[in-house]
Amino acid sequence: MLEDHFLHRFLNAESIAVVGATRNPFSPNFHLVNNLVTLGYQGKIYPVNPRVEDVVGIRAYGAVSEIKENIDMVVVSVPAQNVLDVVRDLVKVRVGGVVVVTGGFSETGEEGKKIQDEIAALLKAHGIRAIGPNALSPINSHNGLAICFFPVNKLPSGKVSFIFQSGMYEPRLNWILSDFHLGISKLIDLGNKMDVNEVDALEYLSQDPQTGVICIHLEAIKGDGRRFFSLLKETTRRKPVIILKGGRTEAGARAAMSHTGSLVRGSDAVFDAAVRQVGAIRAETLDDFLYLAKAFSYLPPLPGNRIAIATFPGGEAVLSTDLCMQNGFELAKLGPASYEKLRPSFPPWNINLNPYDFGLIYTFHGFTNNHELFIDAVLQDENVDCVALQLPPLMFPLDPPAFCPAFLRAVERGKALAAWPPHMLRLEGDLVAYLENHSVPVFPSAAITIRSLGALNRYRQYIQYY
Amino acid sequence: MLEDHFLHRFLNAESIAVVGATRNPFSPNFHLVNNLVTLGYQGKIYPVNPRVEDVVGIRAYGAVSEIKENIDMVVVSVPAQNVLDVVRDLVKVRVGGVVVVTGGFSETGEEGKKIQDEIAALLKAHGIRAIGPNALSPINSHNGLAICFFPVNKLPSGKVSFIFQSGMYEPRLNWILSDFHLGISKLIDLGNKMDVNEVDALEYLSQDPQTGVICIHLEAIKGDGRRFFSLLKETTRRKPVIILKGGRTEAGARAAMSHTGSLVRGSDAVFDAAVRQVGAIRAETLDDFLYLAKAFSYLPPLPGNRIAIATFPGGEAVLSTDLCMQNGFELAKLGPASYEKLRPSFPPWNINLNPYDFGLIYTFHGFTNNHELFIDAVLQDENVDCVALQLPPLMFPLDPPAFCPAFLRAVERGKALAAWPPHMLRLEGDLVAYLENHSVPVFPSAAITIRSLGALNRYRQYIQYY
Repeated sequence: MLEDHFLHRFLNAESIAVVGATRNPFSPNFHLVNNLVTLGYQGKIYPVNPRVEDVVGIRAYGAVSEIKENIDMVVVSVPAQNVLDVVRDLVKVRVGGVVVVTGGFSETGEEGKKIQDEIAALLKAHGIRAIGPNALSPINSHNGLAICFFPVNKLPSGKVSFIFQSGMYEPRLNWILSDFHLGISKLIDLGNKMDVNEVDALEYLSQDPQTGVICIHLEAIKGDGRRFFSLLKETTRRKPVIILKGGRTEAGARAAMSHTGSLVRGSDAVFDAAVRQVGAIRAETLDDFLYLAKAFSYLPPLPGNRIAIATFPGGEAVLSTDLCMQNGFELAKLGPASYEKLRPSFPPWNINLNPYDFGLIYTFHGFTNNHELFIDAVLQDENVDCVALQLPPLMFPLDPPAFCPAFLRAVERGKALAAWPPHMLRLEGDLVAYLENHSVPVFPSAAITIRSLGALNRYRQYIQYY
Repeated sequence: MLEDHFLHRFLNAESIAVVGATRNPFSPNFHLVNNLVTLGYQGKIYPVNPRVEDVVGIRAYGAVSEIKENIDMVVVSVPAQNVLDVVRDLVKVRVGGVVVVTGGFSETGEEGKKIQDEIAALLKAHGIRAIGPNALSPINSHNGLAICFFPVNKLPSGKVSFIFQSGMYEPRLNWILSDFHLGISKLIDLGNKMDVNEVDALEYLSQDPQTGVICIHLEAIKGDGRRFFSLLKETTRRKPVIILKGGRTEAGARAAMSHTGSLVRGSDAVFDAAVRQVGAIRAETLDDFLYLAKAFSYLPPLPGNRIAIATFPGGEAVLSTDLCMQNGFELAKLGPASYEKLRPSFPPWNINLNPYDFGLIYTFHGFTNNHELFIDAVLQDENVDCVALQLPPLMFPLDPPAFCPAFLRAVERGKALAAWPPHMLRLEGDLVAYLENHSVPVFPSAAITIRSLGALNRYRQYIQYY
């Protein structure tokens, strides 16, 4: 049962104490309490700060032990030298779990490691599970719980859950949730992993029905490596798992050591092979990581590798064809019915149906909604497994609800369809927002669109053949 | 002499006839004349259209032969079946060169190829050089000359010149020039290359003092391959050349054939090896192509491969370190003076100077201008060849002129410095625009920043060792 996993209480905490809560809005700690209020978290909040009466209008306590109630989760964000004292105090009362946000432990060297071990031992002796230190989490979009040093304006729910080695997501979290239109379910940042590690987090999210895609950022495996990979293998049968790893190179591994005290063991090539073998998807970069999260959360599984593509300029049709080939696709051979539907758009000679060239048609017929024509043709065509196309240039005045119905029909019919704009970087706010709000993902370029679809295609092959 | 090259007259045409000019603002042809007017082109414009008196207020002619003046360049954009007639007419008068914009020739098959050959032969017999067919160009930012099917609002000058196989740049040209802040010098789109080909264009741009970076998009080499590569080799000694090739795969090559009639000969691996041997930089994708254009046009040459990096979240420092290693850099070892300058920003323990972690510092000191501290330290440090850093999160209210002086000092001192934002996609308009207007390039992510710098580093190595 999911409810029996110890992380369930962290993510569904009905009472949270925040040690180090502050009224100073310029302090990172301010947001630890303020986000809960902003996001409408319905549990009890106990700010702990001996120097103030209240924090954002909520009564503050001098110490955790002064709170005479069950506390599901204690979040500790005080200077490193005070953490052990806080822990000595909190073990006196009934606490479900602890998150040590504070950094300055094993990542700083032997002495920090010693204190971290002492904290871990003390908590373990009292049967209290602990996330961190040097960790900012958790987040659960379903109950407004967000422990974060940055303001979180809203927390739209989605099916992607993240495991992070560190708070790397933080400065971009608002952007991910709003402009990038990626809804999340849960986020667990593990930091130095003195107790809770990636195996625990994966165990939980693997079983979580609200989590449809798992994205894991890690610098080193702290738990049992065999268990991690066998759990991955079991999980990828049911939901895609995307992995981004820092510390692939020697210098990167050294940086990881002084960032989260992560000891990178073994070569990256071995890690890479293991990831592939268990059907997880390796993200090469942080960019990839987020684009793959989006692709897997927006799009249905691919039934095959036959892709239909359409671009605005013809040169891009050629480049996009190359990208499709490089990503394991074949160009779908559109049938006679598609030919009949598309023929009226042709210039005075026969052109390719796939890749289809909107730009060429524009030079002959001016701007018409050939996107609709094309999408409706390929939707009916049984030779097409997925569709990637370029949106029209900004100069054409478009009313999204009038322009997009065919895109929405593709979503309704369960056809994987992804788009990219005619320049890069998704500048056309209205159209992009409209499409993404209707489950059509828009990536910044042909390369990113087709590579992201390529990952879906590799995942399909894994599921099909292994 | 540059002036003696036949392309000089195209790019510096003092009189242009536009056959197929139209008053219809919804027709692509409208922009052929209108852009010249909008951009303040100072030469003579002769719209040719027998059905109208004038086009955007300029007297129109019934045929090129009715213009009783020298015409430096005739732009032909009429239906394919009428092009030969237009050419038969224009050879009667003194014409410098012809651009056949119209498509529907060799890219459509044998019959189209035959007519194209006939047009080419006729022009050749009259000693008239011709760009195209199926080509939209040229553009010269220095005289407001822009032949384009899309409106061009402004044409800021820069040092990048482009050679395109096709009009792929068009729907994104305004974006490239404005939001992307890439100034261009000249652009030559060659289309089906019935006469003028990539060798001619490279010859010209290689000698052009206004061109500091040459970007070539091609689907096939139509001219003399040996000459092309020897010219490249000679050119890359003096200025970087970036190459993007469509038709790398079999299916891509087929698409190229029906796009610009390009016959891709030989394997892509051979092409790739040849490109490397002559010191040109291969762009993998259109994204790369534009980012590399930006990196090479904004940044000074690198003196070495010792990079200093700074990120907002520490996890990104680790990932960025990996990226630096993967791109041939080593992390600069900052000297004792840098240590003394940066030490006041430390948390209560010793941290890395490189990669430097703004986020960690923020959690201890709140938001201060550590970017300035870091940049000023590495600017004085003789162990640093280039700098890549992440901008602060949007939540910090920044006044660009107050925040950026250290960035500008880096530019003044000739140090290569590139930045990326804390999310992706460069949303912080004001800061990005301010930096780019002051010659600091901002890329969307660490991966794109460091890969782009990596290309500068490979170019440095080529120049240094070959």
